[in-house]
Amino acid sequence: MSLLVVGSIAIDSVETPSGKADEALGGSAAYFSYAASYFCPVRLVGVIGEDFPDDYLSVLKNRENIDVSGVQVQPGKTFRWRGKYEGDMNVAETLEVQLNVFGSFDPDIPETFRDSPYVFLANGSPEVQRKVLHQVRKPKLVFADTMNLWIEIKRPELLELLKQVDGLILNDQEALMLTEADTLVKAGRAILGLGPKYVVVKKGEHGAMFFSNEGIYALPAFPTAHLVDPTGAGDSFAGGVMGYLTHANTIDSETIKRAMAYGSVIASINVEGFSLGRFRETTRQDIEQRFALYRDMLRLG
Amino acid sequence: MSLLVVGSIAIDSVETPSGKADEALGGSAAYFSYAASYFCPVRLVGVIGEDFPDDYLSVLKNRENIDVSGVQVQPGKTFRWRGKYEGDMNVAETLEVQLNVFGSFDPDIPETFRDSPYVFLANGSPEVQRKVLHQVRKPKLVFADTMNLWIEIKRPELLELLKQVDGLILNDQEALMLTEADTLVKAGRAILGLGPKYVVVKKGEHGAMFFSNEGIYALPAFPTAHLVDPTGAGDSFAGGVMGYLTHANTIDSETIKRAMAYGSVIASINVEGFSLGRFRETTRQDIEQRFALYRDMLRLG
Repeated sequence: MSLLVVGSIAIDSVETPSGKADEALGGSAAYFSYAASYFCPVRLVGVIGEDFPDDYLSVLKNRENIDVSGVQVQPGKTFRWRGKYEGDMNVAETLEVQLNVFGSFDPDIPETFRDSPYVFLANGSPEVQRKVLHQVRKPKLVFADTMNLWIEIKRPELLELLKQVDGLILNDQEALMLTEADTLVKAGRAILGLGPKYVVVKKGEHGAMFFSNEGIYALPAFPTAHLVDPTGAGDSFAGGVMGYLTHANTIDSETIKRAMAYGSVIASINVEGFSLGRFRETTRQDIEQRFALYRDMLRLG
Repeated sequence: MSLLVVGSIAIDSVETPSGKADEALGGSAAYFSYAASYFCPVRLVGVIGEDFPDDYLSVLKNRENIDVSGVQVQPGKTFRWRGKYEGDMNVAETLEVQLNVFGSFDPDIPETFRDSPYVFLANGSPEVQRKVLHQVRKPKLVFADTMNLWIEIKRPELLELLKQVDGLILNDQEALMLTEADTLVKAGRAILGLGPKYVVVKKGEHGAMFFSNEGIYALPAFPTAHLVDPTGAGDSFAGGVMGYLTHANTIDSETIKRAMAYGSVIASINVEGFSLGRFRETTRQDIEQRFALYRDMLRLG
């Protein structure tokens, strides 16, 4: 089974209490693809500028399970984000955003990708996400991500999109903002009423919650002692979740829970380095090892 | 095995989005005792004023496993707290505090309580907590709680106390404040360096973390859909943890983990009503039922 992801590929400059990374490989679809590629073939669609370093494209292109034939090169510069973490490591302070070629991104899904059974609409405007949806044929499972910006400025379009996806993954602040609820439990349930059958609320260092009509559950983050850079944690988590689901090719509460556990484990590895640094030295076996620790941590006899 | 708890008994007035409770039974030691009494005999030491309603004392006194012979009645009024929750349900806005008789509380541990093998020093000044410690004979396990006020105004006394206890239970903001760390993992580890062998960090709706020299683990909160009043959740959690440990009479990482799971379950029940309302209709069997749901929620196959 293959997993299609459409989203941003970026050049990030990040400062954290542990150090900094200048002009590093980033973007929601980059983190997502790498994380998912531990489990299944990933079809990546995104846009980069002419300035995008060959080395960065190679990181994705040379990865066995990632097909970059959907990455367009456009005249101009690549999407850039510059941010900083201090104090609360769950929230990045955005210092600068240059949308560049991502600002006019009009995803054209390659013909060979249009039969993808699993689809992830990474962060992007709801209109762009909907355009992707119209190009894929009868996918088995579609999850979307969103962010505060779209909740604020594209709420009607987002609500329309929510009627067309199976699942929504978003962070805690976004869930509260979207629903105007005062607790995450209320927020998650309210989102179920907006269309999606599955809602995953990411809580950064506090883990994640899952909502469906069958019930609610919460999983903690894997407590790593080596937090270096939280950038991409949420996208890595989503990549782990969707990658595992695609691999399992089964969609039920138990499988989604295991998928979320893999997502948590992968996110905890990702934050131990800048950019995709830790991923590049991590094998599937390393992930299984940490998964076993995580499973044991949660075993109550 | 018996569990001694020394702390506040209060009359609380609370307003939440679900409603309000006026002049209700509260206080750290009241919540703690009731929660712990599901598992073991509890010896309660505290102080109340002459205005304390008989009905409220009866709630504790008539409870099979609670011995209130250490509750002193002093001339004057009972400790009162008035607070409000809105927006972030993890943080109470304190509208009024009247220390009253609790302000000059000088705990005198009854002779029959001084052999208690398990001891919990609920919220109180570090000097008062230390006075309690000097009156008990060779306890097997002592845990203390603390709060932002003492971290601010009694830091040297608190640091001295930490050298004399086995464990510290405190909330996330307090852990960061005490250690000036920027993540909870760093904060928890730093507290281990201050004396306690065990550190439990309470994170409200996000669950709790445990730290010892053997490692770190995190457990989520049980996601209740019926959040009514978070008051006393942390004390109920601590009561569940200490009650279960006293009952098990074993202190190792696995047992503490199960104890934290029981604490999480009990706290999730407590927040479903005002004051001790939900406890009073909850049996040990109800707790086992929710524990089974919680255990299943965390089972990853």
